[in-house]
Amino acid sequence: MTEPNLHQLFPASEVPQWDSETDVIIIGFGATGVCAAIEAANAGASVTIFERNSGSGGASALSGGEIYIGGSGGSDAQRAAGFEDSTEDLAAYLKAAGGPYHDPAKCDLYAAESLNHYQWLKDQGIPYRGNYLPGKHIEPTDESTLIWSGSEAAAPFCNVAKPAPRGHVIQHMGWGGGRPLIDILEQRARDLGAKVVVDARAIALIADGERIVGTVFRIDNQLHFARANKGVVLATGGFALNEDMRRRYCPETFKINSPIGDKDDGIGIMLGMAAGGDAVHMEQFFTTCPWTMPESHAYGVFVNQAGQRFINEDCYHGRVSRVAVDQMGDRVYQLLDVAHFVQPLELAGITIAGTGDTWEEVEAELEMPEGTLSTTMAFYNKHAAEGRDPLFDKRAPILTPLDQGPFIALELNFETSYFSFFTLGGLRTSADAEVLDRAGQPIAGLYAAGRCTSGLPAWGHGYSSGLSLADCTFFGRRAGAKAALSTS
Amino acid sequence: MTEPNLHQLFPASEVPQWDSETDVIIIGFGATGVCAAIEAANAGASVTIFERNSGSGGASALSGGEIYIGGSGGSDAQRAAGFEDSTEDLAAYLKAAGGPYHDPAKCDLYAAESLNHYQWLKDQGIPYRGNYLPGKHIEPTDESTLIWSGSEAAAPFCNVAKPAPRGHVIQHMGWGGGRPLIDILEQRARDLGAKVVVDARAIALIADGERIVGTVFRIDNQLHFARANKGVVLATGGFALNEDMRRRYCPETFKINSPIGDKDDGIGIMLGMAAGGDAVHMEQFFTTCPWTMPESHAYGVFVNQAGQRFINEDCYHGRVSRVAVDQMGDRVYQLLDVAHFVQPLELAGITIAGTGDTWEEVEAELEMPEGTLSTTMAFYNKHAAEGRDPLFDKRAPILTPLDQGPFIALELNFETSYFSFFTLGGLRTSADAEVLDRAGQPIAGLYAAGRCTSGLPAWGHGYSSGLSLADCTFFGRRAGAKAALSTS
Repeated sequence: MTEPNLHQLFPASEVPQWDSETDVIIIGFGATGVCAAIEAANAGASVTIFERNSGSGGASALSGGEIYIGGSGGSDAQRAAGFEDSTEDLAAYLKAAGGPYHDPAKCDLYAAESLNHYQWLKDQGIPYRGNYLPGKHIEPTDESTLIWSGSEAAAPFCNVAKPAPRGHVIQHMGWGGGRPLIDILEQRARDLGAKVVVDARAIALIADGERIVGTVFRIDNQLHFARANKGVVLATGGFALNEDMRRRYCPETFKINSPIGDKDDGIGIMLGMAAGGDAVHMEQFFTTCPWTMPESHAYGVFVNQAGQRFINEDCYHGRVSRVAVDQMGDRVYQLLDVAHFVQPLELAGITIAGTGDTWEEVEAELEMPEGTLSTTMAFYNKHAAEGRDPLFDKRAPILTPLDQGPFIALELNFETSYFSFFTLGGLRTSADAEVLDRAGQPIAGLYAAGRCTSGLPAWGHGYSSGLSLADCTFFGRRAGAKAALSTS
Repeated sequence: MTEPNLHQLFPASEVPQWDSETDVIIIGFGATGVCAAIEAANAGASVTIFERNSGSGGASALSGGEIYIGGSGGSDAQRAAGFEDSTEDLAAYLKAAGGPYHDPAKCDLYAAESLNHYQWLKDQGIPYRGNYLPGKHIEPTDESTLIWSGSEAAAPFCNVAKPAPRGHVIQHMGWGGGRPLIDILEQRARDLGAKVVVDARAIALIADGERIVGTVFRIDNQLHFARANKGVVLATGGFALNEDMRRRYCPETFKINSPIGDKDDGIGIMLGMAAGGDAVHMEQFFTTCPWTMPESHAYGVFVNQAGQRFINEDCYHGRVSRVAVDQMGDRVYQLLDVAHFVQPLELAGITIAGTGDTWEEVEAELEMPEGTLSTTMAFYNKHAAEGRDPLFDKRAPILTPLDQGPFIALELNFETSYFSFFTLGGLRTSADAEVLDRAGQPIAGLYAAGRCTSGLPAWGHGYSSGLSLADCTFFGRRAGAKAALSTS
């Protein structure tokens, strides 16, 4: 027998015995996998989820449980708070957020179906309080539903789509709504009869001719040959925790140091490529340093080591952080006045690099050339007092003069501050979650969604909170449904 | 019979008849292919070059025929001009030039072997006059040999490796030394018995089990099954002329408009991936707008639409251009005083966007906010007069105050100026030019070099003239030699 391995399809003809059989195999038990399981079961298929960890969750359970939702006039929460939201605006925003990497078909489909998806989530039992929480938050610390979770109200996004808040967060006290979100969906999948096999590591896909018909797993150090009568769904996440893949496909992430994930080893991408799948946009990544915590820090100004601003700071924290990482050198500075300063969270690894009663004093403490940072701030303050930012079009109320000292310069250091990241590139899939080959044709029997694919959150520079869970849950559902209807 | 296609290996068992047989098949007749042919023939193999065009050349023949050479104490031309050049400095420069995408093994090997490679080129009959041409040139317009062709003397490169000029140009009057370079190498390959088949389009690789044993071509609209007893060398160039591949793998190139190439359709990359090859760094590209022509324009200053400088302008024109394309908006401005201004080449598509007796007037003509560009230039001039650039460490003599008007602002527009580009990503290969699979193992019988691989010129932000031809000729040689020694 050929030794099964990640990089080759294993021929069905060499399977010594089928150790299990199901209609739909789902590899990975995060948000993508569990939604795929529910929809495959709803379509009448038998389903088995194989998970390499000892339980459900994946990276999704580490998240805030926030899902990017809108369009079709607005959700209940949006409308209650006075926000109309058209499908066209949502689609336009999604395309701008994906930048050069967006998939138009996925953006259009998700924009059209987003409210139906929200209803589906509620139907599974996900609770939403329905209220709006104004301000700038990474996640609500109370049970609120609706927050601004992207760069909707900031240039250039506000010029291409009418802004609305679209982050919809599960009703859950405090941070970390991802865990209860998964727990509810897991229970639903189990109620529908999905089987779960944990501590199972995928080794290879099994092919019968052109069709994927199963998966080889390693379970209890034994090979396990699992047959899928209808299809295999890859739901394994990105490759933030696979250093070899990062070096080959996304080496800019070595400029920062804090991968987010839960065994995100990129295995689904490798399995998909072995089946002839096409991996795209592999160099794209999300990063953020939690510089808007405390919230008052959102009023600060960022400069690079040349003392130049580089972004309108009213953008989403991840967009600002991603552009920061593009700057020269190993750090950027966030400038604050004492009125807005609060000691940053210790976990952020943000340090005080300089202080002064004037910006000239701060400039000198940072050992910046005279006339750099101080000129930047004089120019900024002059126009902020007039309510405008002629360079980057930052908007009020985040736009406010920082002209009453003392002042503080915080250092966000790419090596030592908490620049968390995960990867965004992955398999190219259709809007039906079919894995496409390099000729653009679906690979029979193979489906994928979530961060082992390139989907709605395609571009770190345009990321918005809730895009990844939107992508995982929505296209995970489509993967499960499509697989269940597959005929060999 | 299966229809042969780019995306699948064609099984040898289905070959209806072998239409030709040779030891080494080389696909592509540019610099890579011709060097592979010479070395395969030198190793005793029979060789056939298949080329989709009607003659030799490829993108290499469109180049200046400049090859990046140095190390081992310096070439004859370097030493005659007083430049010592250590292997360590060359290796360090190559690694810095490749940025996060460099392949350490290729950089180290090329640095160690570069002078031997130069001798080999001479042995094939490439003439070098041996003299040094000081100044800043895209290509010599006379027969000179040695020019500064990268960012060696500019920060940050000059801080990691002792600078030396390393661009070695074939003796040839005027631009376009690539064509005579290829002609000489072609004659050499033909003298050694290499066969050439033109107007032959590669369709699929042929595999016998795990080994590549031939190629299906389309010639005169007929399928042609070519057997390779020892190996197949992919030498087909990048994918600058394949819009579908650009959209999938390198979409940022749609910000600019002038691909350089000669049917560079990425076919070698697709063939290699179909054989299990690993394509890496596919989002990287080279671009340049010929802003240093006339040469006096090298003394200018670049600003983005916010009126901010973004680079030390004494870097290589391609590095400056690549960072320019990263800037917001659709253009950057090059600022000059009248002493340095000459009407730009018409082909560059560079226009005069504003003029004035003071930088304040230029700023107003460009409709930039008051105090942006003018402050940038006041700061620049103040320090340039002191011989320093505290922001970007630009060095004299390129660093010079621009404080005697009238002044001119040239517009380099990403859409309408001549931002030429080609792609840098491709197959991952060993330093012996073996195509590696996703597990990092060589694919038996398959070799590749040049722009269908990721090689020495891995990163547009660090590109230097001569890197691509160095890569093509050196690793092309290794591909041919290694293929000739292959045993099935």
